[in-house]
Amino acid sequence: KYLSTMSSQANHKLCMVPGPVEFHEDVLSSMSTLATSHVSPSFIPIFGEAIELLRKVFCAEKAQPFVVSGSGTLGWDMVASNLIEPGEDVLVLNTGYFGDSFTVCLETYDAKVTQVKADIGDRPSIEEIHQALTQKKFKAITITHVDTSTGVLSDVKAIAELVKKVSPETLVIVDGVCSVGSEEIRMDEWNIDVVLTASQKALGVPPGLCILVASERAMNVFHNRKTRINSYYASWSNWLPIMNAYESRKGMYFATPPVQLIMALHTSLKQIISRPLELRFQQHKEVSNRIKDSLEKLGLKFVPKNRELSANGMTAVYYPEGVKPADLIPKVAAHGVVIAGGLHKLIGPKYFRIGHMGISVTEPEREHIDKTIEALSVNLKELGLKGDN
Amino acid sequence: KYLSTMSSQANHKLCMVPGPVEFHEDVLSSMSTLATSHVSPSFIPIFGEAIELLRKVFCAEKAQPFVVSGSGTLGWDMVASNLIEPGEDVLVLNTGYFGDSFTVCLETYDAKVTQVKADIGDRPSIEEIHQALTQKKFKAITITHVDTSTGVLSDVKAIAELVKKVSPETLVIVDGVCSVGSEEIRMDEWNIDVVLTASQKALGVPPGLCILVASERAMNVFHNRKTRINSYYASWSNWLPIMNAYESRKGMYFATPPVQLIMALHTSLKQIISRPLELRFQQHKEVSNRIKDSLEKLGLKFVPKNRELSANGMTAVYYPEGVKPADLIPKVAAHGVVIAGGLHKLIGPKYFRIGHMGISVTEPEREHIDKTIEALSVNLKELGLKGDN
Repeated sequence: KYLSTMSSQANHKLCMVPGPVEFHEDVLSSMSTLATSHVSPSFIPIFGEAIELLRKVFCAEKAQPFVVSGSGTLGWDMVASNLIEPGEDVLVLNTGYFGDSFTVCLETYDAKVTQVKADIGDRPSIEEIHQALTQKKFKAITITHVDTSTGVLSDVKAIAELVKKVSPETLVIVDGVCSVGSEEIRMDEWNIDVVLTASQKALGVPPGLCILVASERAMNVFHNRKTRINSYYASWSNWLPIMNAYESRKGMYFATPPVQLIMALHTSLKQIISRPLELRFQQHKEVSNRIKDSLEKLGLKFVPKNRELSANGMTAVYYPEGVKPADLIPKVAAHGVVIAGGLHKLIGPKYFRIGHMGISVTEPEREHIDKTIEALSVNLKELGLKGDN
Repeated sequence: KYLSTMSSQANHKLCMVPGPVEFHEDVLSSMSTLATSHVSPSFIPIFGEAIELLRKVFCAEKAQPFVVSGSGTLGWDMVASNLIEPGEDVLVLNTGYFGDSFTVCLETYDAKVTQVKADIGDRPSIEEIHQALTQKKFKAITITHVDTSTGVLSDVKAIAELVKKVSPETLVIVDGVCSVGSEEIRMDEWNIDVVLTASQKALGVPPGLCILVASERAMNVFHNRKTRINSYYASWSNWLPIMNAYESRKGMYFATPPVQLIMALHTSLKQIISRPLELRFQQHKEVSNRIKDSLEKLGLKFVPKNRELSANGMTAVYYPEGVKPADLIPKVAAHGVVIAGGLHKLIGPKYFRIGHMGISVTEPEREHIDKTIEALSVNLKELGLKGDN
């Protein structure tokens, strides 16, 4: 279907950063939907169906999705203000920049945060998490599924199993900004209470939507909170009636929903669930290995300390000795591929990041991955690296 | 320039609600900008320039613009959390639904709100405001420039003059969601401290951006606050470095900016400032009078009690006796023009609303206003109304 329109995107630099990612032509068309009222009969069912589709993509049959105008960062405020009451303890598993920031957000809403902080490139061990969980009664534990600053992948399934065993009342909160759509995640089966994400990563939609899915248990905790909610824009009291209204195909007003972005989300979700999710996860693993293998062959070292704890939707790589960001990133861009610099505050200028999510992975006929490997290889070799790919 | 592409929009129903409004073809093209990193050299200067252009549109030479992923509602959280400290008094001038909601938002952040509440269709008199202002020392006064629920226009200039005279330290906060771009507003000249708005009204961009401009005085109040900010996503401490970075043409990360929406904003702002703002305001007045005259001739009554306190970018009209929303709105839609029902909780089903903002007003060759008047007249006459237009 898109082959006829792919040519319209042919001449642009590929956006291979860990979000925003490349967009499907149909997603782009949805973005330029002509002016449409947010309570139009042509929009209401689209929004309603997008909410339903999120349950499928998050593997969460009875959970409550929220789709709100905002960036993924807003999802932290939603967790902190709706689920945690002032003074309650939260355990934050920290694998990089996003663990630091989630902590600041939680503390803004008076949560008492305990962190289990891994070294750069590592993740807290199950033993460390076990030990931390048994020291206090935590209202929630937060896991950054993939920390975009380090490319470290957390073992959400194993952590959730552990929580269920040693602290079953603790809510399991997953920051899935850089994982939903690229990493396997099954809310119901794994007993996850919240997964929050943003539109511009593996969901394949331009940035501007905060997407959060809360389990029935999380919603019960929300409904039974004893203190009031210390936010207006992030308050589920305001958003829940809106989500319920649109899902039952009625319009309702709290804040004007971003019509075009929601149309684009609907388009992308339909594409995602049109094929088995297993295949999608498998493809992301294969492409990730292919990219990582090609860089490894050139002698490069990754930020994550081994392949097992590496994300499948992005790769964080140290520059070769003596190479600076300006030596590589602009040259790869001149070759038609945009990659990203480092983000972690301690090692920012020492590494770069490549995103490989969404249609760049699931539609190999676009050759995005080939072009990315080619642009990287050529330029790294020009910097003196040797390798056979 | 757009005449060649207007045909691509020819067959859609005109969106004549008080936001979202009709979009220019170039704005729609910007919305489907191919995947672009938020720190790309092709995006950074666009974002930077959009920030600069906002100062021109808001007539605020040295003020600080904020452009954030979110709806206009988020602007209230920004005001409440950044400028008001817990326990401080705020005077809310209430002309409808949005005064009620702004009050709830302010109280969420522990402001002590005093309201001057007008009857439906009216606005507080200068005498009432004067009296209220002298009763306490208010940190801020909030004015809904146009309350979208009633179509009542506030006299921002006169109120700001009064505040300067009787309570000069009080910050003047304008909710300009339904006024920026359609009603005259001059931040510097009128001594306004904050104007907040959203993208989807007279700025002519799809929904999804919260836009707020704060005066130097407001920024000083922010910098000198004694208590911490009780929000993370709405906190200017997080956004100010980002705005400064992009304005000095550097990328910086707090939350991924909505690239496509900001591109669209930039396109629309360029169009807006390409012609004198005076002309723009004049056109909105003329079109407003034309629409209101045509409805008045058919014997209809408006929600605002007279023309002087009626908005120029929208019209709120009572249905004729015995007519229900379902008798008119779907029929006008079948005629190709989408209008909106009522929003005010006390009179919701008794009135309807028409938006007349942006290109529908400034580009008469599109004939949006003619078509709207025609669709309304034909259908109102079919309901038994008599008139000569």
